[in-house]
Amino acid sequence: MNKLLIVGTVAFDAIETPFGKTDKILGGAGTFIGLSASHFNLQSAIVSVVGDDFPQEYIDLLTARNIDVSGLEIVKGGKTFFWSGRYHNDMNSRDTLATELNVLADFNPIVPNHFKDADVVMLGNLHPVVQTGVLNQMTQKPKLVVLDTMNFWMDCALPELLDVIKRVDVITINDEEARQLSGEYSLVKAAAKIHTMGPKYVVIKKGEHGALIFHDEHIFFAPALPLADVYDPTGAGDTFAGGFAGFITQQGDISFDTMKTAIIQGSNLASFCVEKFGTERMLSLTKEEVNERLKQFKALTQFEIELQ
Amino acid sequence: MNKLLIVGTVAFDAIETPFGKTDKILGGAGTFIGLSASHFNLQSAIVSVVGDDFPQEYIDLLTARNIDVSGLEIVKGGKTFFWSGRYHNDMNSRDTLATELNVLADFNPIVPNHFKDADVVMLGNLHPVVQTGVLNQMTQKPKLVVLDTMNFWMDCALPELLDVIKRVDVITINDEEARQLSGEYSLVKAAAKIHTMGPKYVVIKKGEHGALIFHDEHIFFAPALPLADVYDPTGAGDTFAGGFAGFITQQGDISFDTMKTAIIQGSNLASFCVEKFGTERMLSLTKEEVNERLKQFKALTQFEIELQ
Repeated sequence: MNKLLIVGTVAFDAIETPFGKTDKILGGAGTFIGLSASHFNLQSAIVSVVGDDFPQEYIDLLTARNIDVSGLEIVKGGKTFFWSGRYHNDMNSRDTLATELNVLADFNPIVPNHFKDADVVMLGNLHPVVQTGVLNQMTQKPKLVVLDTMNFWMDCALPELLDVIKRVDVITINDEEARQLSGEYSLVKAAAKIHTMGPKYVVIKKGEHGALIFHDEHIFFAPALPLADVYDPTGAGDTFAGGFAGFITQQGDISFDTMKTAIIQGSNLASFCVEKFGTERMLSLTKEEVNERLKQFKALTQFEIELQ
Repeated sequence: MNKLLIVGTVAFDAIETPFGKTDKILGGAGTFIGLSASHFNLQSAIVSVVGDDFPQEYIDLLTARNIDVSGLEIVKGGKTFFWSGRYHNDMNSRDTLATELNVLADFNPIVPNHFKDADVVMLGNLHPVVQTGVLNQMTQKPKLVVLDTMNFWMDCALPELLDVIKRVDVITINDEEARQLSGEYSLVKAAAKIHTMGPKYVVIKKGEHGALIFHDEHIFFAPALPLADVYDPTGAGDTFAGGFAGFITQQGDISFDTMKTAIIQGSNLASFCVEKFGTERMLSLTKEEVNERLKQFKALTQFEIELQ
């Protein structure tokens, strides 16, 4: 089985949406990536940090899904990273109510020895210096390095971000971030400019409007599945990235055809994530449900056409 | 050859975008629908009205594409409908600078006798009473009636709009209009509600984010082709509708598979429309270019997937 190394936050989230609100629940990019990738046939490990306020039962949820947590540091007397946000009625925009870095402020990631030869590395949204620190520990060049990031690092740590972007194969960002990073409004031009910064593959996440992958002159598009009810978009982007990286790890090849299927798999998994609060839907998700919805993705997009 | 009857404005537009600005040029929903539909093998006619300030050369552009203009009334001493707008930098929003109804204010559409048995009727965006007036003149029930409308009529003529919506098979509106018409935010729920108002098919246009067609439990999605340069979005929605209605007319069947291909054809034609100002790109468009881009649509969306 191929190995996927995941770096990302394991955290507490408190979420308000028009449909309800939660107390502190399990969250974090690393968590969502890990849960999503666990739907594929692979070995995975999460490198992250929590405080000793983090419940053992949450860690057990990860290990029950065969996610190696030997790289999950537990800081004695430390408090776990906490994020709180409120979504607006359109579910596309949100206000951050609280961001308490806590143990994340001094996070020094340690890659477990048995994952220093991982086939695929998924760098979840974190300080670019942390992302670089993980890459520096790999003893064997991974087949593929995927990086997720956000506008915050473009604003506050652009040189460090550009340094790590140089070293990755795939970048996943949203449309506004692609525009900010490239200075180009057209996503086609933005992707072309980001190619020149390093990544051979540029994945642009458009939320409810789907995702695009650009590779040289090639473009492929995965729609988001239109849903009757969206309860909580938290973690959808990470679930997408986890499905993308997980599928590629399982397949063990990095052809563009594999990437295409990978963004469909990512969109498919993300479509479940938003159906309940936090990780709830991902924790109950079965293989049958995943397969059933993949058929819906086919029906949604596949067509026959005869040229005139 | 099957017959397509088109009702819609034939007009002057003056357009400003970040890339330039035009004087009064050829525009109007009926014009864009007609030019787009003319790429298919069919007989078409436009029912519309202009003033005698409308240049014969513009009418010649239509007849050169085999569009029957015997239903295009020319009002002596009248002035042609004029619209002027300025697009913002994102090209998704615009300000209307002028709307001069002129001869459109008293428009009483007359369907030519030889199109009263049209197979498909495409009711372009106009006052719903005008749309109804056209349907009332049909001597034979069309295989398919497609209606395009906009938020303006929902605000100002809702009862009349609901009356005509009852009588059509397909409605094409944008996402915001679908939400306004249905009172539902989710497009899945909005489409379900609009089904109950009459149309068996609900097409939701999302501009640069593509288009969805809903039919009972079935959904199909056509992306918009990501473009490096968008010069002028004017007419893209009408070009989409014209391609949709035109393809269905040519095929002469109204299965859901035909509808699916029809929205791909519509998206494909619309992707050209925005590449130059006004009708310029549509007037130069060749069959080879259309076919070449249909292949790009295939590459953009088609994938193989094995269920796990």
